[in-house]
Amino acid sequence: MLDRLLADFDERKPAALARAVSIVENHRDGFETLLGSFQPRLGRARRIGMTGPPGAGKSTLTTALAEAFRARGLTVGIIAVDPTSPFTGGALLGDRIRMERVALDDGVYIRSLATRGSLGGLSRATRETADVLDAYGFDRILIETVGVGQSELDVARTADTTLVVLVPESGDAIQTLKAGLMEIADIFAVNKADRPGADRMLNDIEVMLGMRSGMTRGELPAHHGVDLKSAELKRKLNPSRVAREAAADDSADQWTPPVLRTIATQGEGIPKLYEALDRHHRYLERSGVLHERRLQRMRERVIETTEHRISRRLWQDPETNSWLDAQLPALERGELTPFNVADALLARSGDLITRIDR
Amino acid sequence: MLDRLLADFDERKPAALARAVSIVENHRDGFETLLGSFQPRLGRARRIGMTGPPGAGKSTLTTALAEAFRARGLTVGIIAVDPTSPFTGGALLGDRIRMERVALDDGVYIRSLATRGSLGGLSRATRETADVLDAYGFDRILIETVGVGQSELDVARTADTTLVVLVPESGDAIQTLKAGLMEIADIFAVNKADRPGADRMLNDIEVMLGMRSGMTRGELPAHHGVDLKSAELKRKLNPSRVAREAAADDSADQWTPPVLRTIATQGEGIPKLYEALDRHHRYLERSGVLHERRLQRMRERVIETTEHRISRRLWQDPETNSWLDAQLPALERGELTPFNVADALLARSGDLITRIDR
Repeated sequence: MLDRLLADFDERKPAALARAVSIVENHRDGFETLLGSFQPRLGRARRIGMTGPPGAGKSTLTTALAEAFRARGLTVGIIAVDPTSPFTGGALLGDRIRMERVALDDGVYIRSLATRGSLGGLSRATRETADVLDAYGFDRILIETVGVGQSELDVARTADTTLVVLVPESGDAIQTLKAGLMEIADIFAVNKADRPGADRMLNDIEVMLGMRSGMTRGELPAHHGVDLKSAELKRKLNPSRVAREAAADDSADQWTPPVLRTIATQGEGIPKLYEALDRHHRYLERSGVLHERRLQRMRERVIETTEHRISRRLWQDPETNSWLDAQLPALERGELTPFNVADALLARSGDLITRIDR
Repeated sequence: MLDRLLADFDERKPAALARAVSIVENHRDGFETLLGSFQPRLGRARRIGMTGPPGAGKSTLTTALAEAFRARGLTVGIIAVDPTSPFTGGALLGDRIRMERVALDDGVYIRSLATRGSLGGLSRATRETADVLDAYGFDRILIETVGVGQSELDVARTADTTLVVLVPESGDAIQTLKAGLMEIADIFAVNKADRPGADRMLNDIEVMLGMRSGMTRGELPAHHGVDLKSAELKRKLNPSRVAREAAADDSADQWTPPVLRTIATQGEGIPKLYEALDRHHRYLERSGVLHERRLQRMRERVIETTEHRISRRLWQDPETNSWLDAQLPALERGELTPFNVADALLARSGDLITRIDR
């Protein structure tokens, strides 16, 4: 059964792709065999993550980028990730409709991922779906996530290149910096750049990128009450700015995220964005960072798989569950603490955890 | 050191409370000893969770409830949980300022919890902080979470009673139902009930509660295209409605979430909400559900602690890390899969996982 699926998959039959994606996403029987057999073929596709607040126009930008790739004969897999929010469940689906323009193209495959489960589960599912698309032979994989929390940072880490999309209305750029977006962004796009406030936002991001380059990672200035528009201050904070702009060619072995202006609905800025993506990929290859990121991703896969196996082995074991239930009265009386019980549970579970169950 | 802290804590010295909270939140040395010694005293406080979309007025409602508790001489601990969103970092802090009205009262303690880390970590921290407040002797613990995703569902599970706050602008009530809020809500409050759409929202929630009572949990009607305002349909979907309203007294051993109208800024609806909280607590005690929920919480604590211990033992072990690094080249060449490596890692880690390290 799986052999047949793999043969069809190798012949690039769309039905086989859909089935493989479904088996992997739902962790149905055989998903590990499938992913295992895909393993040697991974790494051909370029994985591009895109994140930003709701309403930033990410779907439109995704569509525009997909069209640009198609125009050069490249195939595109799109993974649209919707961390289900109990309060915004409805809005996100509407976004997807905007992708219809490319949905009918045979060279484009769109998959929506949503979950009510753990967010860890969401980034795992994203990575595994991307692996299937990579093995199938898509040239580019666009991973779009809606910004509702920690999740998009995790999802972004599954990509080679991360594009952060902001809009003039996104609000205080300093908040963005503080929330860790600066750390994950390889490219910034200020979309809807014809709206008021676009210049200021571009400016603020650039200044902060300059501040970051002069700081240790994670270190932020304690005092934000400065006028970021002051040209004097900018020079002071960002002495390397001129040098950086001069070095924005392929010979640089450092990467400073470019800040681009786009109006996705009109296609404005898409060629520059396309070019920046190419340039970032060349940087990743040349610097060895691509190799590092992919090794890191592999490492995380092992850690994730290991923890998942342990949880399954422990908490699906009837005997462990009965034992745990038997401890609850003593816990309730305060004679035991959760820490004692966890230690005792581990001490008795060695064989259970380490046996190979398939 | 810890003995002194515990002695001061027993004397209800505010500085000891602050230190205990800080030790527990940051998992500093001694946090397990502290929580362990609190274990026998837990269960006195009533834990009330509150969740709802940004802008629903949760902080105002929290403040109003805290004042109502204080008016009856009850002390209140407030845990304000902000799952950090990279895109809304700024807005949430503003909310907190609204609580100033009660912040200066000695009988009220307010603690903000925010994290950029895993959401699992956030619900753990919430539960542990609530344990400290419970042990200290607060009569009521209000846990307020901002609705940005899965997190508030997890956080809600740490409470005895969960209050879901909606506003007329919250949008489609059916989305709310689908996203799992119906399953966690013990009480609904439609806040800002003087705004247009409040009646419709109240109505929709009631109808859906009726639908739920006729269904297996988790089962939802496939077709939502019905006019929920039709009284005819309501009777059809909700035959028990009249019976239910008649039974809304203390003798019922079933709980149907009441749907209340509040205008928190004016204190409207607070007495009814207060009364509903009391009534729900009596139901929890009488039905045995309180005991069940607390045992379940204890069980989850053990599971969480066990998994946390395993992760720490495995991934902080230098030898395991070197071994894992040594597998990466074969993984990269596709000779091994993450699944093989995870199995091999588990097979060699039995002693490491099961040793008792404190």
